[in-house]
Amino acid sequence: MNERLWFFRGGARGDFRVTALRAIRGESLPEVERLAVEREGPEAGATFTLRGVVSNERYLARSERAELAAVQAAIGRPEARHGALIPIRKSAEWWALPQDERRAIFEERSHHVAVGFRALPAVARRLHHCRDLGADEPFDFLTWFDFSPEDGQRFDDLLGALRETLEWQYVEREVELRVER
Amino acid sequence: MNERLWFFRGGARGDFRVTALRAIRGESLPEVERLAVEREGPEAGATFTLRGVVSNERYLARSERAELAAVQAAIGRPEARHGALIPIRKSAEWWALPQDERRAIFEERSHHVAVGFRALPAVARRLHHCRDLGADEPFDFLTWFDFSPEDGQRFDDLLGALRETLEWQYVEREVELRVER
Repeated sequence: MNERLWFFRGGARGDFRVTALRAIRGESLPEVERLAVEREGPEAGATFTLRGVVSNERYLARSERAELAAVQAAIGRPEARHGALIPIRKSAEWWALPQDERRAIFEERSHHVAVGFRALPAVARRLHHCRDLGADEPFDFLTWFDFSPEDGQRFDDLLGALRETLEWQYVEREVELRVER
Repeated sequence: MNERLWFFRGGARGDFRVTALRAIRGESLPEVERLAVEREGPEAGATFTLRGVVSNERYLARSERAELAAVQAAIGRPEARHGALIPIRKSAEWWALPQDERRAIFEERSHHVAVGFRALPAVARRLHHCRDLGADEPFDFLTWFDFSPEDGQRFDDLLGALRETLEWQYVEREVELRVER
C-alpha cells in the first residue's frame, strides 16, 4: 500500500454529501449522492472512482514554499465542514512545454501561488497527481479542498481567479464537486 | 492501455541477453538470463518486472531541450545492439527539496544535461518514471540506453561522470543491468 495514494469514490456512501456537481469544461462526472475520501476501502457500490498520489512539488521555489507553509492549514480541521473536489485534465500542448515555460505560465504569468495565498489559511488544499499512475486516467490532477461554511465566498473567489488565468487556458477538462460533511 | 507505460521483465525470455548485473548502491536485483522490454506481454516466467511511464520533462529549459533534440537519437537503431537498464531510487531528502533546488543540483551544480550531451548521438536514452505509479515501486526511475558495441566506452564514461556528481549523492539505490541484442 502506497501511503501517498488516495481514492475519491462517488456513490451511495462516504463521509461527504454531494451538494453540487457540474462540468466547468468538457465532460462531467455521473451524479452521485455521496463522496468517500480514503486510502483504501471497498470499490463495491461506487459509481466512479478517481485516484491520485500526493507527490513532490513541480513548480514551487523554496521561498514560495516557506511563505505558504507559514500560513497554510492541513485538510481535516473540525470546523472545515464544506469541501470541494476539482478534477482537472490539462492539454497535450501543456505537457509538451518544457519545464521553464510551464513554470513561467504557472507563476510569473498566472500567479497561481500568489492567488492561492489570498485564500490562506481559510481554505486548506491537498493536490493529487494522476497523470503518471500508469493506467489511462481521465484526469491529470485531483485537488481536494476544505473550509468552514463561512469561508465559502473566499473559496469561490479563489476558483474564479484561477479560472481567468493563462494557465487555465491549458485546462481541457474540469469538474467541480461540492460537498458537506 | 497507457501508451507511455513500459515493462522491463527479467527472466528466461526477451530480446536481450543479460551480460552483467550489479548493484552500484543498495540492494541488487535477482540474476536473470534475459530481459524483455515491452508495452504489454505475459508476466508469466518473469523473475522480476519493473515498470515506468514516459512523462513530461521535469527540469529541462526550452534551450536545453532544443540542443538535445538537434543531436539525440531514438532508442532502437539497428546497429545499437548493446544496451543498459539503470534503475535508480533517490532519497526522501531529494524529494523533499523544492523544485528550484532540485533543478540547481541537476544542472547548475551537476551538469546532468551537459554531461549527457557529450555521449550524443552515440548513446540513445529513454527515461521512465515510477515514483507516482500509485503502487509501492522499488525505484523512482528506469533509464534505458542503447548504443553500438564500438560506443561502449563512451557509455561507460557517461555513467562514471554522472556518478561523481552532487546529484548522485541523493541516489540511495542503483542497479546496472547490461544487455546485448
